Amino acid sequence: MNRIEESPLYRIANARSIAYYGASNRSETMGSIILTSVLEAGFKGSVYPVHPKEKEVKGIRSYADLSEIPETPDLAIMVLPTTVVCQVLEECGKSGIKRAIVVSGGFKEVGGQGIELEQQLLGISKQYGIRIIGPNCLGIVNTHHRLNSTPLSMEGEPGYVGLVSQSGSFVAQMFNYLSSLGLGYSTAISVGNEADLDLVDCIEYLAECPRTKVIALYIEGIKRGRAFIEAAKRITAKKPIIAFYVGGSEAGRKAAFSHTGSLSGPDQLYDSAFKQAGVIRVHSLVELFDCCWTLGSLPKRKGRNVVIQTHSGGPGASAADACSRSGLSLPSLSEKTRKALKPYLPHTASSANPVDLTFTQEQNSFFIDIPGVLLKEESLDYLLIYILAPVFSIRERMMKAGKSEEEVEEMLGGMAGFAAENFRNLTESTGKPVVCFTYHDPHNFLIRAMIDNGVPVFQDPARAVRAIKANADYCDMNLDKGEKSHE
Amino acid sequence: MNRIEESPLYRIANARSIAYYGASNRSETMGSIILTSVLEAGFKGSVYPVHPKEKEVKGIRSYADLSEIPETPDLAIMVLPTTVVCQVLEECGKSGIKRAIVVSGGFKEVGGQGIELEQQLLGISKQYGIRIIGPNCLGIVNTHHRLNSTPLSMEGEPGYVGLVSQSGSFVAQMFNYLSSLGLGYSTAISVGNEADLDLVDCIEYLAECPRTKVIALYIEGIKRGRAFIEAAKRITAKKPIIAFYVGGSEAGRKAAFSHTGSLSGPDQLYDSAFKQAGVIRVHSLVELFDCCWTLGSLPKRKGRNVVIQTHSGGPGASAADACSRSGLSLPSLSEKTRKALKPYLPHTASSANPVDLTFTQEQNSFFIDIPGVLLKEESLDYLLIYILAPVFSIRERMMKAGKSEEEVEEMLGGMAGFAAENFRNLTESTGKPVVCFTYHDPHNFLIRAMIDNGVPVFQDPARAVRAIKANADYCDMNLDKGEKSHE
Repeated sequence: MNRIEESPLYRIANARSIAYYGASNRSETMGSIILTSVLEAGFKGSVYPVHPKEKEVKGIRSYADLSEIPETPDLAIMVLPTTVVCQVLEECGKSGIKRAIVVSGGFKEVGGQGIELEQQLLGISKQYGIRIIGPNCLGIVNTHHRLNSTPLSMEGEPGYVGLVSQSGSFVAQMFNYLSSLGLGYSTAISVGNEADLDLVDCIEYLAECPRTKVIALYIEGIKRGRAFIEAAKRITAKKPIIAFYVGGSEAGRKAAFSHTGSLSGPDQLYDSAFKQAGVIRVHSLVELFDCCWTLGSLPKRKGRNVVIQTHSGGPGASAADACSRSGLSLPSLSEKTRKALKPYLPHTASSANPVDLTFTQEQNSFFIDIPGVLLKEESLDYLLIYILAPVFSIRERMMKAGKSEEEVEEMLGGMAGFAAENFRNLTESTGKPVVCFTYHDPHNFLIRAMIDNGVPVFQDPARAVRAIKANADYCDMNLDKGEKSHE
Repeated sequence: MNRIEESPLYRIANARSIAYYGASNRSETMGSIILTSVLEAGFKGSVYPVHPKEKEVKGIRSYADLSEIPETPDLAIMVLPTTVVCQVLEECGKSGIKRAIVVSGGFKEVGGQGIELEQQLLGISKQYGIRIIGPNCLGIVNTHHRLNSTPLSMEGEPGYVGLVSQSGSFVAQMFNYLSSLGLGYSTAISVGNEADLDLVDCIEYLAECPRTKVIALYIEGIKRGRAFIEAAKRITAKKPIIAFYVGGSEAGRKAAFSHTGSLSGPDQLYDSAFKQAGVIRVHSLVELFDCCWTLGSLPKRKGRNVVIQTHSGGPGASAADACSRSGLSLPSLSEKTRKALKPYLPHTASSANPVDLTFTQEQNSFFIDIPGVLLKEESLDYLLIYILAPVFSIRERMMKAGKSEEEVEEMLGGMAGFAAENFRNLTESTGKPVVCFTYHDPHNFLIRAMIDNGVPVFQDPARAVRAIKANADYCDMNLDKGEKSHE
């Protein structure tokens, strides 16, 4: 595939018109809930509900039959009882519709007759040349195209994370979580039973998608192993792929089988496949998106030398310990760097690595001068900074000093915005990867400002270190083979 | 030690009067900042600032000399230049003061002359029988006594976590983090260089402290190894101890040395000491407090069988995978349980373990009926539940249905409070440990309500599973030896 338009996913993710099956005016069904999502997302194309009786659904005109619709829709979305899906798909085929998302379950995943039913569905899809996502899925979210076929409202800003998931929940239920990290989906695909379009088709699409900087996978089992490895090997030369595979443990295997009927393989098999393909493997969803953050936003660079900047010994030592345990090194700083740091350090400070200020109230030197010096240190591959923003104390003390609540909020916001913007400008100009950690949550005013300025700030040094390690692993595995793409 | 009053820490943590050295009316010094904390915390006793020139500091009367103070204070707090500390301690000794917190640094941790100076300090302490916390520390926080000698304001509610930390930051900077988890310190002690009172004295105090349900340690190196093991072995029979030790890795060891001059030992040595003593070891601060949550609040019970309840396959399979990797088992449910579940499960649901509802809008059956059935399952040792509360969607849709913002917030709050309270009553009545996980943060209305009702809700199944494992490990190591204390 050379052009994204050639992908069978292209006109699904970028549908201009949708025939929608399964919504009525009873708002409690899944079909009605998903139609609400489609309409709420701000989709710019046409939506045509199809319903035998209703004249209007959710306030828009409904059609008794496909033949009444004034055009041939790009896509059909079906949230129907299992028993009628095949018949409806056939009607779609006859009327020339070439793409469908089958949300309905009751196929392969339930066993028995479901398996035959899925074969029948696939037969119809082949007969009419209809490409299908599903069945037993939540379809697709393209945040940039304002398309959302999940039961939950799209939340937060469009982003650069492309997700392919064998769980619909991880597409539908992560909007809020991602946006708290300043992340968002470019396109997320819930593949369900993969009767037709599968994981491999999806990563090939996301590889060409210009909005997608990093590809995240939630996997319970890979059907086309060889094809996956070949495709992933090509893709990782220019775009990182990170995989969360749950089928390798005993309980994970059983749960996956009961969930999507996936036949999963042992851990070692998957580990070796991922390694061959240059794919980073992770062990939780939190880790998956943490790695998307570093791999999607940091400059690519070989090397594992981390310099830690802190104003407290404990957080510094904790981060140092986590680095060591992950195979990252803490180089000593050169004489030149130590000398250049001197004007900014109090006499109690340490200019070993971690650089520990012990105490500072100079925001400017903490966010600008000191990182500025450290980022020139030749042995540094990553700069890792501990951030403290004791909002409660600052607020209490400012208000005690006679400031009004509004004045305090304005001052805090101003300080944070100023620090974060200057910090971003500094780090962008050096081209070296910078990651922060804190124990505050992303609602803290300074953490929010940093995240909004594109700086990854993890609520735990262990998470920051794991995500740095993933970045380093990706570069080691793939930078040479993909050099041309990274100039 | 049989009575808490016999501990040298008792009258420090419960001081009735304080002589305070190091505050002036220049607000930017550490001494002045800490005095602000002491006064702000709502300390009920008397505070006597001592200053050669000022007549009044921070709005309260200041004294030129100890002899002017109308009583002999229980405690002296010193935030002074290194060079005058010994002289001031001697004055305290002469006037009969028997306890001091020495915040000042510049002693053993800087090497050279600092080592001698610390010896001199210790000599004075012995000569006059003054017990010292520090030097190079932030002293003590007793939330129940409203005593706070750290530079940050005390935030959140008093709690049940007793902390002993070789980092002052981890005492001062964690108020907000802990309170987001519904946790709080009972008493937290920053031990600094441990010239006199050390880690062992502190755990012995916390063992007797009736407010402390679980003891957390941040360790860079243990000075009195044998005494630590003996004390911890006794204590863990009735109260869990969890330790985060950073000195075992190469970079951690170096950072610890530069931080507090600690001489740390190899990982294996500490692992074996912790094991002998029945202490749980963790590898990050986040994990430390996660384990405080489960070990401080869950019923104690031997066994590692986890039943997972979810309404989404992906989160269920992720939790199952995490359990397997941590050595926890997922038992199959008995016929009796499966039968009892039936009325509450939709036809697409699975009553294997994970119990996957696939879809539910019945809040009551999710939070009451189904857990009620599962908690009667004989093979269950822990119930692990996935919680989803798509606030954004609910809010959007309620408002679209014509509700006002106030009505929506009230309904959401009411629903959450109702569910959480009933859930707490249910789980308390069964006496079996229940843990939840979610991808929402603790600001989500339902998650907040659950946490406020004492239910541990982790923002990641991997964290939940780790904390369950710590609970199971503690019970395995200590339940028999401590049986009498757990009746």
